[in-house]
Amino acid sequence: MSGERFLEACAAVRPVDPGVASTAAQYHDRLTKPRGSLGRVEDIGIRLCAIAGVCPPPVPEPVTVAVFAGDHGVVAEGVTPWPQEVTAQMVANFCAGGAAINVLARHVGADVVVVDVGVATPIPTDSPALVRRNVAPGTRNLAVEPAMTTEQAGAALDVGLDVALHAISGGARLLVTGDMGIGNTTAAAALIAACSGRSAGAVTGRGTGIDDATLERKTAIVAQALTRLPSHPEPLLVLAEVGGLEMAALCGFIVGAASRRVPVLVDGVIAAAAALMARAFVPDVVDYLVFGHRSSEPGSSVVLEELGLAPVLDLGMRLGEGSGAVLAVPTVQAAAKILREMATFDSAGVSDKADTPN
Amino acid sequence: MSGERFLEACAAVRPVDPGVASTAAQYHDRLTKPRGSLGRVEDIGIRLCAIAGVCPPPVPEPVTVAVFAGDHGVVAEGVTPWPQEVTAQMVANFCAGGAAINVLARHVGADVVVVDVGVATPIPTDSPALVRRNVAPGTRNLAVEPAMTTEQAGAALDVGLDVALHAISGGARLLVTGDMGIGNTTAAAALIAACSGRSAGAVTGRGTGIDDATLERKTAIVAQALTRLPSHPEPLLVLAEVGGLEMAALCGFIVGAASRRVPVLVDGVIAAAAALMARAFVPDVVDYLVFGHRSSEPGSSVVLEELGLAPVLDLGMRLGEGSGAVLAVPTVQAAAKILREMATFDSAGVSDKADTPN
Repeated sequence: MSGERFLEACAAVRPVDPGVASTAAQYHDRLTKPRGSLGRVEDIGIRLCAIAGVCPPPVPEPVTVAVFAGDHGVVAEGVTPWPQEVTAQMVANFCAGGAAINVLARHVGADVVVVDVGVATPIPTDSPALVRRNVAPGTRNLAVEPAMTTEQAGAALDVGLDVALHAISGGARLLVTGDMGIGNTTAAAALIAACSGRSAGAVTGRGTGIDDATLERKTAIVAQALTRLPSHPEPLLVLAEVGGLEMAALCGFIVGAASRRVPVLVDGVIAAAAALMARAFVPDVVDYLVFGHRSSEPGSSVVLEELGLAPVLDLGMRLGEGSGAVLAVPTVQAAAKILREMATFDSAGVSDKADTPN
Repeated sequence: MSGERFLEACAAVRPVDPGVASTAAQYHDRLTKPRGSLGRVEDIGIRLCAIAGVCPPPVPEPVTVAVFAGDHGVVAEGVTPWPQEVTAQMVANFCAGGAAINVLARHVGADVVVVDVGVATPIPTDSPALVRRNVAPGTRNLAVEPAMTTEQAGAALDVGLDVALHAISGGARLLVTGDMGIGNTTAAAALIAACSGRSAGAVTGRGTGIDDATLERKTAIVAQALTRLPSHPEPLLVLAEVGGLEMAALCGFIVGAASRRVPVLVDGVIAAAAALMARAFVPDVVDYLVFGHRSSEPGSSVVLEELGLAPVLDLGMRLGEGSGAVLAVPTVQAAAKILREMATFDSAGVSDKADTPN
């Protein structure tokens, strides 16, 4: 049955180790720097220790970013100025190495895996690198009907899980979420609203750039779609009703990584929606996440607030593809190296500060 | 005369090229991404083009971080819980490779140059890597007298200039500011207040960690020192009266880079004070700066506001050494690679969005 392996992976997610986190916090205080002076870099280091169950943690490398591409039936409502074919064209661009995610991934030494989980139009590439796992030619129009059947959502969850486990089998020790899909910020807004209880107005944004009238229509579509959900819906039903094929795959990808105790670097609003969805399936998954950046799309901030997490970067990015998260890779790896390589006050012969309260 | 070469370098700083900046902004809009969707990464790319005078810009590498170490006579006032010897001990730690800046610089592929421009106590190292350019064994106590003579300040400006030009002669194409000096946040606060017109209370912070009573005393010392300045002081007088040897050197370092059209990545509050000081000498220098991060020290935000710049990172760091700026190196280099390596809509066969206003 589709989604069955995903549910098994959910059951395999274990809480991270709070004892190791506490050891890491204490170890930070022995390193040759004022206590706490590396700010959130220290928090990331502690999180990596808790995930790995050891301090210092291994440097999280090699890195794989998986870009899941899927189309959205809701584009029929005119929620975006981009033609739907752009999803397929950008998939070809990813395979050819010319997109932002390719440039940034090469820069930080990450592998890029491109997955067609639901592209609606022919993909103009014959690249053998493209992972062809198309579950459906895009979702249906969530403005008027369920975006997917629960069977399709389950199949997409399994696709993401498979991609995560395959990358980890191949050696990856840090997974990065990537996404592509014209119309996807509408579905992401709906998922975030459904999982957080926030209003459509609080989570719906301008995506790649729309005018006020289109934003108003987009918000109304999200609000309307949410009314179809029962009051306490099962996670799979939420995902199928208002989600997207690439968000389902990302949810499976995140859970797959956590089930193998591999940290996940989360990109912008599409990935944030998938992360919130993953938490609905298995709350412990949150401890395996590092948010790479805060997207300028409002749903991104809502999810960060909901999870009580701060992002690595906050550069006003809103591209998707995994671009913001990949750009955060060096900082995440640096957090591990600080714990692995820095001298302690004792080893370096540096005097600690006088014992005054502060 | 000391400081003379520094003044020549000031005269050699040219405005960056606004025409190339505009070309870069237009070129960004042809790349396969929604316009503006890489946020401040695009701004950094535009700045690199304007500095280099060409679009796309060269990738700013190799990278050299220079850590200027100097002591501060104001420690006699009890403004910090750390013993003064820690400056010299940390210099030895830098030379041995065990400090945060070493770990982070190795991580991003940057060279570290350690410069004694004013350490007060014996440095426990015989490392040949240490650049010994000690102008004075620390400043005098700025709470009661001028921190330096203008002759000393001029000599320290020249040290920084020399280090910048030497690094550039050796091939460096991105310079990063680093600093070490127990007591230095007091002098940085005084410099920032003097150069910005802000109050002592607005710019004085807790440095590496002090209690409320010490913060109050530290703020009063800064306020008192400022009263000794005439109403429209020459920059060199300000620097000598309330500055530090490492801040003077950093000021020379920044101007040296700008005089050769090399971008400078600015670290935390100590470097921010030096940057503001550099602007007082030569306003055009600002266009050569990228701020690596926002320090949690309040003076850092004051300088960013004063210069109208946004930092790359905002991670609550407050270590100094160049640590925050070095961590921003991958993002700055990525900004150049985006312009160099991304496909255009035309070249990749990707449809542009429909021409709707937004």
